[in-house]
Amino acid sequence: MANCLVAQSGGPTSVINATVAGVVKANQMNPYYDHVYGGLNGIEGILNERFVDLTEMSDDENRILRQTPSSALGSCRYKLKRDNVADFEKLFAIMEKYDIETMFYTGGNDSMDTVAALSQYAKEHGITNRRFVGCPKTVDNDLMHTDHCPGFASAAKFIATTALHTWLDVNVYTRQEVFVLETMGRDAGWLAASACLSGVVDLVVLPEEAFDKEVFLNEVRRCVEEKNKCYIVVSEGVKYADGTYIAAGEAKNDGFGHAVLGGAGNAIKNMILENGVAERCKVQDLSTAQRCFASGQSKVDVEESFELGMSAHMRSCDKNFTGKMVGLKRKDQPQYDVDFFAIDADQVANFVKSFPSEWILPNYRGISKEALAYLEPLIVGSPVVIYKNGIPAYVKPYYMR
Amino acid sequence: MANCLVAQSGGPTSVINATVAGVVKANQMNPYYDHVYGGLNGIEGILNERFVDLTEMSDDENRILRQTPSSALGSCRYKLKRDNVADFEKLFAIMEKYDIETMFYTGGNDSMDTVAALSQYAKEHGITNRRFVGCPKTVDNDLMHTDHCPGFASAAKFIATTALHTWLDVNVYTRQEVFVLETMGRDAGWLAASACLSGVVDLVVLPEEAFDKEVFLNEVRRCVEEKNKCYIVVSEGVKYADGTYIAAGEAKNDGFGHAVLGGAGNAIKNMILENGVAERCKVQDLSTAQRCFASGQSKVDVEESFELGMSAHMRSCDKNFTGKMVGLKRKDQPQYDVDFFAIDADQVANFVKSFPSEWILPNYRGISKEALAYLEPLIVGSPVVIYKNGIPAYVKPYYMR
Repeated sequence: MANCLVAQSGGPTSVINATVAGVVKANQMNPYYDHVYGGLNGIEGILNERFVDLTEMSDDENRILRQTPSSALGSCRYKLKRDNVADFEKLFAIMEKYDIETMFYTGGNDSMDTVAALSQYAKEHGITNRRFVGCPKTVDNDLMHTDHCPGFASAAKFIATTALHTWLDVNVYTRQEVFVLETMGRDAGWLAASACLSGVVDLVVLPEEAFDKEVFLNEVRRCVEEKNKCYIVVSEGVKYADGTYIAAGEAKNDGFGHAVLGGAGNAIKNMILENGVAERCKVQDLSTAQRCFASGQSKVDVEESFELGMSAHMRSCDKNFTGKMVGLKRKDQPQYDVDFFAIDADQVANFVKSFPSEWILPNYRGISKEALAYLEPLIVGSPVVIYKNGIPAYVKPYYMR
Repeated sequence: MANCLVAQSGGPTSVINATVAGVVKANQMNPYYDHVYGGLNGIEGILNERFVDLTEMSDDENRILRQTPSSALGSCRYKLKRDNVADFEKLFAIMEKYDIETMFYTGGNDSMDTVAALSQYAKEHGITNRRFVGCPKTVDNDLMHTDHCPGFASAAKFIATTALHTWLDVNVYTRQEVFVLETMGRDAGWLAASACLSGVVDLVVLPEEAFDKEVFLNEVRRCVEEKNKCYIVVSEGVKYADGTYIAAGEAKNDGFGHAVLGGAGNAIKNMILENGVAERCKVQDLSTAQRCFASGQSKVDVEESFELGMSAHMRSCDKNFTGKMVGLKRKDQPQYDVDFFAIDADQVANFVKSFPSEWILPNYRGISKEALAYLEPLIVGSPVVIYKNGIPAYVKPYYMR
C-alpha cells in the first residue's frame, strides 16, 4: 500500500475543488491509498513538503468543498521547467519520503505539461512506482481533446446570467444606451461566446477573429439606429490583424509568458465615443468574479468535476496509468451525457482549443445554432446551495489552517 | 369603481418588480380597482399615456416577475418639477381620462418627492379623487424612516457573496496580493458595509467618513506586513475632508444634480502602488451587476418587496390615503420580522439616511456587531429560481412589447 497526492495549479474556477472532493470520496469507497494528501500551492508547496491529510474528510466537508470556489489547496504559477533537474530530483525524493505512488494534478495546459514531463522523467529514469495523472480545469475551456473543461460551464452560466440581467437593467430608460460586457478569454472566445446563451447579446467580439474596427463600428451604428440600444460582449484577448491587442495600452506579462490583459471593454467604449457612434457607453468588466462566483454553479459542471476526480482515482489503481489526463467525451446521442476517457497529457499540454471559426456569425452578430447546441446542456441545473447566515457555506482553505 | 396605475422610477434593483407583482396580486384578491395599469418609463411614459394592463396577470407570470430584475415597466430620470404646472395639469387630465384613482410609484427619494408633490397639488386644487402612494426601492438603502429599502438586501447578499468568493480566489497564490472591491453608494455606505457580512474584509472605506489617506495606507501596510494580503472594499462615493471625491478624475453629472461616480477602486489602487505600499493590486468594480444580478436574491427581500406592494394596495382602498410612502418597521424582538407602516412621503423625499457613524470601526477596520446584527437577517434565505435552459426565466419587459 502507498499514498496519493492531489494538488491544484493555475487560475481558480468555481468547481475546481469538486475534483479534489471526487478523489477523496473515491478513496473512501475503495481505500486503494492509505492516505490522500493534499499538496498546498501546487508544485511550489509540494517541493516544500507542505501537505495536508484529506483521507478522512467528512461527508459534510466533502459536500461543502464542492460549492467552495477557488483552489482550497492553494495554487501556484510556478512552472516545472524540463531542464530544471534539481526540481525533478527533489520532487521524486519527496514522493519517496512520503510514499506517494500517484500524484493528481488539476490545472490547464501548463499543468498537463507538468504531468507529461514528470511521467516522462520517471520513464527515462526507470522509475516504475510513481504515477502522474492530470485533471483538466479552466474557465477558458481551451484544452484540446476534452469536450469541455470543468469550471467553464459555471463561468459561462454566470456570464450568461449577468448578460441577461444587465441587459434588463440597461434597457429601462428611453435614452440611447450602449453597454459593453468584458469577459476573460486570452486566446479563446468560449467565455465571451457563452454570453450569447442569454439570447440578448447584439454583438460579440471574439479573439479568434482579427478585429475590424470599421465593420464593428458600423454594426454598432446600425444597432443604435434600429433600437437606440446596443448590447456588446467582448473578450479581453481581442486583437487587430497586426496582432496588437485592442486593449494594448494595458498589456503586461504574468511570468508564464502570457500577456495579462484587461481593458478591452474600455477600448471598445473609447472607440465608440471617439467616433461619435453613440453618445453614451457603459462598461462592465466581469473580472475575477466570473471565474469564482459560485452561487450560480452549473449542476452539470459540479457533478462532472466531482466524477472526473473519482474517475481519475479509479483509473490510477492501474499501475500503468501515468502521464494521462482524464477528460470528458460527449456521447453521440440527442440527450446530453458524457463518457470519461483518458489521453496522453502531452497531447493536451501547450495547445489551445479555439472557439470554432465556423460557429462565429459574420459581422459580430453572435454565434451559430451549433454553438448554442454545444453550450446549452453544460449550464443546465443548479445545485442546492448550503447557506450559513445568508452567505454560501465554504470550506476554509487548507493553506490557511 | 375606478382604476389604479403602478409605475417605477430611478435605478433598477433586483426585486423592484416584486412590488408591482404585489399590487397586481392584491387587486386579484380584492378587485378594488377595475384595472391595474402599468405606466411605462415612469412619469415620462405616463405623460405620454403609455400604459399596459396588468389586471389579469397569470400566477406564473406573477411568480417569474418577482425573480426578474430591473424595472419591467421601464424607468425614467425625469423629475416632476414643482414649478412645472403644465406637467401637473397634464398628469391629472390623463388620470381623469383613464379614471385612475390611485397611482403607486416605486422609487427612491426623488420618487417620494414626486408622490409628495402630486398629493400636495391635489390638495391645493381641491382634487379629492386622486391618490398617490410611494413604495420604497433603492439598492443604496438610504431612505429615511423605513428600516431598510427593498432591493438593498439582494444587492448586499450579492456583494457579500462576491467578496467571499473573490477573497477565496485572491488568496490562492503565496505571493503578495491586495484586492479592492468597489461598490455603489454615492452618499451612503450601506452597500460597501454589507461586504463585511462575508467575514473576510480587512478594510472598508465608506463615504460617511472623510478619507484619510495616511491612516488608510498605514492600515494597508500593516495588513500586508501581517499576512501578505489585504482585502479592501470601497464605496464609489468616498471623499477627502475637502469634499473632493477620491475618484475625482472621473466625476460627471447625471442631470439630477447627482455626481456619476466610478473609479474609487482604481483611485485606491493607484495610491497603494504609487506609495509603494504593495507591489500588486487588483480591482473589481461590481458596477451594474450588483444592483440587478438576481440569481442570488435574498428571500426576505423578495418577499418584503412583494408584500409591500400588497400592503400599499390594501391601504389605498382608504380614500384618505395619499401622499404616503409604505415602509418597513423592524419588530423589537429577537426573531427578525417586520411590520408595514405608512409615513408622509415628504418626510422621506430628498433626505438621505447615512450608515451610522457609531457602527463604523476606527481605521477602516470594518463595522460593529450592531451593524452586522442589523444586516444579517436581511440576506437570509434564497427563493427557488425558475430556470429555462440553464438561464433564469424572466418576464419580457412590458416596455418592449
